[in-house]
Amino acid sequence: MTDRIAAQLRFLTEACKLKSVQRATTLCDGSRRENSGEHSWHIALYAWVLGDQAQADVDIDRVIRMLLIHDLVEIDAGDTPIHAAQDAAAQAKIEQMAATRIFGLLPPDQAQSFRALWDEFEAAETADAIFAKSIDRVQPVIANLETDGGTWPAYHVTAAQLEARVGTKVARGAPALWAALKQRIDAWFAARPPSFE
Amino acid sequence: MTDRIAAQLRFLTEACKLKSVQRATTLCDGSRRENSGEHSWHIALYAWVLGDQAQADVDIDRVIRMLLIHDLVEIDAGDTPIHAAQDAAAQAKIEQMAATRIFGLLPPDQAQSFRALWDEFEAAETADAIFAKSIDRVQPVIANLETDGGTWPAYHVTAAQLEARVGTKVARGAPALWAALKQRIDAWFAARPPSFE
Repeated sequence: MTDRIAAQLRFLTEACKLKSVQRATTLCDGSRRENSGEHSWHIALYAWVLGDQAQADVDIDRVIRMLLIHDLVEIDAGDTPIHAAQDAAAQAKIEQMAATRIFGLLPPDQAQSFRALWDEFEAAETADAIFAKSIDRVQPVIANLETDGGTWPAYHVTAAQLEARVGTKVARGAPALWAALKQRIDAWFAARPPSFE
Repeated sequence: MTDRIAAQLRFLTEACKLKSVQRATTLCDGSRRENSGEHSWHIALYAWVLGDQAQADVDIDRVIRMLLIHDLVEIDAGDTPIHAAQDAAAQAKIEQMAATRIFGLLPPDQAQSFRALWDEFEAAETADAIFAKSIDRVQPVIANLETDGGTWPAYHVTAAQLEARVGTKVARGAPALWAALKQRIDAWFAARPPSFE
């Protein structure tokens, strides 16, 4: 076995651990929490299907690749639920170290190109990264809407908080998609008793 | 919400069910069986990382898209372990019906293009589909090697059977990769007592 193939297989076997990282969000039928591996598959499919919601200069194939690797750092750093209290700077530092270790398993040329794509996703400045971040935020909203609010009650999420932490990010990359979801979200919060918020 | 977005979200929510389809193969640490959703993520990553093993005319982005949807029919048809006894014609018919129903949830233009890509994968005739099939067969071999044979003993798999059902398909799309794995496979079978086969 060549060193190159051996390094590639070591990375791919390490990546398997992402299937054991639990997220806050459940499956769409509420039967269990989803893991970050299957989440990564689902949002790659989201990006493809909803690609016509992206700006014209977005390269959907690059977005799909970004989303396939966007959560790999969670193998070391764990998942950080968006509605949980957190120390963002400390978490970012842990994720940077994780990226160095995990992408470093690849042959040098791939280690560099994979890391560059992950850095681009994290920076959320290019059109591709902005759309990828939108899609990453949309999928849990759908899962929560499909399961009568899902994890929103447990995290005491308000409509205003959802708009601030999720809506602004989704709307930045896919404005028509957020406008469409806002109707369902508003209807769900309107139907909750006032004491919920 | 536009009819188009509504149809896209219905398809994506239906796709979530793939996370509840169990496969014969376990995770690389043997802790549990993997599901077809996380498997689809893992092999899309495999195709990308091992893309330099493909023939020069293979379009890795098309292969990744194929692999993201290749197992969606299992939502209706279930997973068919490669080493299990099966009625291939009956299974193919069930999968065709599943493809019609599931891809039919998409807006008509996407229903057609997604179905065409799935049909191309199933036919295994184009260079992209041949490489995609190779990758789909490689990942369980790695999982089994990582877990001391994994599910091979339960299915009474022999080295000859592995070569016939898996090796020929992997070698067709990625010959150097199969040659590299063959060393590890031969070593594993050589270390088993003769009564195993």
